[in-house]
Amino acid sequence: MSRTSTAFLFDLDGTLVDSVYQHVLAWKEALDREGVPLSVWRIHRKIGMSGGLFTNILLRETGMEVTPERLERLRRSHAQAYVRLSEGGAVQPLPGARELLAFLTAQGMPWAIATSGRMETARHNLEALGVDPAQVPVITRDLVRHAKPDPDLFEAAAARLGVDIERSLVIGDSIWDMLAAQRARALGVGLLSGGYGREELERSGAFRVYDDPADLLRHIDEVAARS
Amino acid sequence: MSRTSTAFLFDLDGTLVDSVYQHVLAWKEALDREGVPLSVWRIHRKIGMSGGLFTNILLRETGMEVTPERLERLRRSHAQAYVRLSEGGAVQPLPGARELLAFLTAQGMPWAIATSGRMETARHNLEALGVDPAQVPVITRDLVRHAKPDPDLFEAAAARLGVDIERSLVIGDSIWDMLAAQRARALGVGLLSGGYGREELERSGAFRVYDDPADLLRHIDEVAARS
Repeated sequence: MSRTSTAFLFDLDGTLVDSVYQHVLAWKEALDREGVPLSVWRIHRKIGMSGGLFTNILLRETGMEVTPERLERLRRSHAQAYVRLSEGGAVQPLPGARELLAFLTAQGMPWAIATSGRMETARHNLEALGVDPAQVPVITRDLVRHAKPDPDLFEAAAARLGVDIERSLVIGDSIWDMLAAQRARALGVGLLSGGYGREELERSGAFRVYDDPADLLRHIDEVAARS
Repeated sequence: MSRTSTAFLFDLDGTLVDSVYQHVLAWKEALDREGVPLSVWRIHRKIGMSGGLFTNILLRETGMEVTPERLERLRRSHAQAYVRLSEGGAVQPLPGARELLAFLTAQGMPWAIATSGRMETARHNLEALGVDPAQVPVITRDLVRHAKPDPDLFEAAAARLGVDIERSLVIGDSIWDMLAAQRARALGVGLLSGGYGREELERSGAFRVYDDPADLLRHIDEVAARS
């Protein structure tokens, strides 16, 4: 690893692992159970924030009282529903995710993962990706004070790699990743694999947009010269 | 009803009923079972076409052979998974859907429903909406030769109402609805409630885009003068 290579700071859900829609329906189920009526597309548009921030905003928008007990029940219901919806191999790495990470490693380009999820839900996805958190820097929600769209997760990932965040790329599928990238003065690279539109990502500051990790790997020279 | 009022031709899933994400994960499950590896966001981007056309295109894009047996298995697996994912009240009318239909009826503005689904899967959604197919024109996939993005469904709905399709509005959430509207020379009105981006709908020809049926009802004077 060299301080002069571009570092890659990856979001996890929707960017490396095909899990966004299961998270969306798991939140829908949790919110229904709590009596919070919310259309599914509105949940989708908020996914990628930290769970806490996300539920805060949803409760505020629906005019419901935000209590620590309610937030904790929502978090637990979501985690339970997500485990059920993603079991049996329903959640897999996105096309090219493993190949992209292997390529960066082979090229000596530093990379890390920064996710709004907790290690509790991220663990299964990391296993599917073949990523060992003992070997690779993985920053989860538990480790920072503010999650996306605050830049803390990506800043912590850059610090862990010993690289300058302003020389880093933030790879994500949601507008919250792109906003966090801008706030950290990193360059945001958007992927369509979370189900958002190209223009949404561009408008939130994506420097470049690709379909998925396989498409990014095919065009890697557009965003980072090999060392 | 008058031949001089603007007629409203509605898509069902994602436009009046909040069921798109359940359909997406049901197709994911059916395709996984058939050994067709496809990312969830790519399925989402094809939803709204007829099931047959949709599976044809997906199998062709993934290089798999299209046989009548495989299509029939996919159709059945999807229907089973959809029923499971939508049970227990998980699928509800979108905000304002019932109010919008009641308003149009009260104003004497003709309206109909045209869906790419079959009556078998549409029946439950119509019940949730309080729409009786014996009273209201409902055109399902079973009744026309070509489904969306062909214009046949909307043309049949206009014919059933006895209105001119070129004086009608097509209300839908997917780019296939907007393309079908253009092919029929109707005006397309896009709703974001299917989870697509505003720009995707505008680029496929939406004359105007609203959040959901409640938002369309609030702005109804923008698209149709009251009779």
